[in-house]
Amino acid sequence: MKRTEISALYAGCAQLDGTSVTVCGWVKTIRDSKALGFIELNDGSCFKGVQIVFEESNLSNFKEVTKYNVGSALIVTGKLIVTPNARQPFEIHADEIVLEGASTSDYPLQKKRHSLEFLRTIAHLRPRTNTFSAVFRVRSAAAFAIHKFFNERGFVYSHTPIITSSDAEGAGEMFRVTTLDPKAPPLNEDGTVDFTQDFFEKPTSLTVSGQLEAECMAMAFGKTYTFGPTFRAEKSNTPRHAAEFWMIEPEIAFADLQDDMDLARDMIKSVLSYVLETCPEDMAFFNAHYDKGLIERLNSLIESDFGHITYTEAIEILEKHKEKFEYPVHWGVDLQTEHERFLTEEVFKKPIFVTDYPKEIKAFYMRLNDDGKTVAAVDMLVPGVGEIIGGSQREERLDVLLARMEELGLQPEDYSWYLDLRRYGGSKHAGFGLGFERLIMYMTGVSNIRDMLPFPRTTGSAEF
Amino acid sequence: MKRTEISALYAGCAQLDGTSVTVCGWVKTIRDSKALGFIELNDGSCFKGVQIVFEESNLSNFKEVTKYNVGSALIVTGKLIVTPNARQPFEIHADEIVLEGASTSDYPLQKKRHSLEFLRTIAHLRPRTNTFSAVFRVRSAAAFAIHKFFNERGFVYSHTPIITSSDAEGAGEMFRVTTLDPKAPPLNEDGTVDFTQDFFEKPTSLTVSGQLEAECMAMAFGKTYTFGPTFRAEKSNTPRHAAEFWMIEPEIAFADLQDDMDLARDMIKSVLSYVLETCPEDMAFFNAHYDKGLIERLNSLIESDFGHITYTEAIEILEKHKEKFEYPVHWGVDLQTEHERFLTEEVFKKPIFVTDYPKEIKAFYMRLNDDGKTVAAVDMLVPGVGEIIGGSQREERLDVLLARMEELGLQPEDYSWYLDLRRYGGSKHAGFGLGFERLIMYMTGVSNIRDMLPFPRTTGSAEF
Repeated sequence: MKRTEISALYAGCAQLDGTSVTVCGWVKTIRDSKALGFIELNDGSCFKGVQIVFEESNLSNFKEVTKYNVGSALIVTGKLIVTPNARQPFEIHADEIVLEGASTSDYPLQKKRHSLEFLRTIAHLRPRTNTFSAVFRVRSAAAFAIHKFFNERGFVYSHTPIITSSDAEGAGEMFRVTTLDPKAPPLNEDGTVDFTQDFFEKPTSLTVSGQLEAECMAMAFGKTYTFGPTFRAEKSNTPRHAAEFWMIEPEIAFADLQDDMDLARDMIKSVLSYVLETCPEDMAFFNAHYDKGLIERLNSLIESDFGHITYTEAIEILEKHKEKFEYPVHWGVDLQTEHERFLTEEVFKKPIFVTDYPKEIKAFYMRLNDDGKTVAAVDMLVPGVGEIIGGSQREERLDVLLARMEELGLQPEDYSWYLDLRRYGGSKHAGFGLGFERLIMYMTGVSNIRDMLPFPRTTGSAEF
Repeated sequence: MKRTEISALYAGCAQLDGTSVTVCGWVKTIRDSKALGFIELNDGSCFKGVQIVFEESNLSNFKEVTKYNVGSALIVTGKLIVTPNARQPFEIHADEIVLEGASTSDYPLQKKRHSLEFLRTIAHLRPRTNTFSAVFRVRSAAAFAIHKFFNERGFVYSHTPIITSSDAEGAGEMFRVTTLDPKAPPLNEDGTVDFTQDFFEKPTSLTVSGQLEAECMAMAFGKTYTFGPTFRAEKSNTPRHAAEFWMIEPEIAFADLQDDMDLARDMIKSVLSYVLETCPEDMAFFNAHYDKGLIERLNSLIESDFGHITYTEAIEILEKHKEKFEYPVHWGVDLQTEHERFLTEEVFKKPIFVTDYPKEIKAFYMRLNDDGKTVAAVDMLVPGVGEIIGGSQREERLDVLLARMEELGLQPEDYSWYLDLRRYGGSKHAGFGLGFERLIMYMTGVSNIRDMLPFPRTTGSAEF
């Protein structure tokens, strides 16, 4: 069977006019009146479906075809006819329609609007809807754009470990990974669990970040990035938190905070450009149905220079407008989304970097500034969302890092390999983290992280 | 600081002859005699380092530089001089050498041969060695080649879930994922563990395969692939088994076993070609130091047509040579590596597909052949390794699938969403799995899976 995908039909319909083609796909809509019927067939190769025209005069199984249910899988052979005056540029006049797989009259995805909440309960079928077809196609394109960006710049893609015996952030609730008997774990004489009998002979968890391991790779390759799943066992039931999500974490050697910001800016511009270029119909759909200003905002980011302000300057500005905010703002507090959006949307009216945050609200590995109070951290804030990327220059000075770890009660022996990077030819280096689902939310205007992952994992939910 | 990477120096040295350049990297070797010294500096941008020549007459800190230890991070500015008669095409005559980060005299990676076993104990430093620099660069290139191959063919990249409440193979030991108190889990009245109090309110594990979820995506997009981590809690302490490894699993709709074989063959040829082309020095290193026939064997696979034999035919051949094998061979047993290698190396002398295995030794979802005894499974066998890819056409017939599940004691209600794919417009479909580390072993000739992963996880070992 020589099959042509619908995306190829759209690309080549002028050349294919009048020729016979075979398309395979699923029935999105079907209707008939007397001796004539119409099927919208979709094969997932692009956002759009193709219109199939079938006639009793031309089709021996016409009557059966009229009874096919929405969702049925069909193999259709027919003549492609260009239709310059119709809504769609061409249609297919069927000479043969073969039922590859039937559907039922109670198929859950009938032609009507379903709520995103309902569709989450049928996550195995929802990729067939317009919204999720577009979300996952954009997700796939964005993932490729990220690999392409880093590959073209000579970054080595590193698969940092998922199961870990360390805790990258020195904080964060983690999932335990174990093969011990859940009911009756082996115990030591003092009554504690005997983890030497666990699979890895010690307690292990799911990683919250590949950064520390990525730093090892940066000290060998100069430039590296991770792109893999990370985990948080936080019972946050919000539209922005999932227990399992994908993160991109580049790490660059011989680089400071400015290099880090340049990289983050170039990356995000590159990814947005790629997706707008390769998924125009999916993006037009989101623009029409989810966020009327979406494409304009993304294009504006691509063309924009980025603002830059320190945390201290940001606080000064925010304090002048404190009556606008729900959360109080003063030097030392972390910025809330409302503060971030005010800065990027109202003050700068473009994307900005905020740098040099108080050390108390940032992780132990961030480089201490000369003021002794702030660290070389950076957040990228974008209109419509707030923070989308967080990064920092890393502390490369062994003595300063050890002092900071002592302040925080971290044990140097737990990080001996990480500290070795400062003992053996350490260099200035920096990196950032981008939550992949947050990026897709920003790019699609769909506002719940549960709709960004094919099968989302959140508190109380690990279906499929 | 305008820095140039060593890969760019090699690419452009003819144009750069006589100009001043700045390179940043780590000292691989250093030696001096009287007023002249030599440093081999590596920055990880390519396999090769660059030779730095430094002279007392030209360098105010000459004496200090001679004392720098191997592993030190340096920033070197100097004149690039093309050296047509030397081993390396150019060298850099240093005008300035800045110590970015010192190393120590007990730096573990001194210039001598280290065993792979020893290097595993310093996995945070081993990417700086020739072998691991090359392994991880090849790994990165191969990952990109895979994404590129599928992207160019219109496959949607799907992130299937890592944490799962189902078991894709209907077998296989799995890691439990939990936030329950390891010592005193909450119990039901009957004394069993109360998993409703666990994070996901049910028992969950780490995935062994994304295939079942990928099938959902294939029924929407027609073509999809996963590329993510998978897990096995098997205490197999062999050079070929890791507890955590990465797997590629494409899934195609409206496709049968032949389409599956075509895709697997095209993919592997494409990935090998890409890596040989983009990593010639890394591959030459493996060919010289790990496997003298490596490049020839890979090129031969690229140019080869692939043989095809059924399992039943394979058994007939193997039975004629049974004296050659350690493991007995007769219809019904699974093929061992010795059998597979005999078939591909001795009988066919090229890569082959073996298809149509007994249903008893294959998974429940593989499509039953008309003989009622075998299933539409396929393994790709390659010289030097044996099986590298395993796949199948999937059972799309609901009644046949249910009967097979009943035979195996699987509960249909545990797979209701998977069965829905057969209720609502199912189509012929097929897919395969490729263990990414096995592929890199095949491509590098390095024979232990612990050396394929930056930070390997195996029984009793989850360091770093």
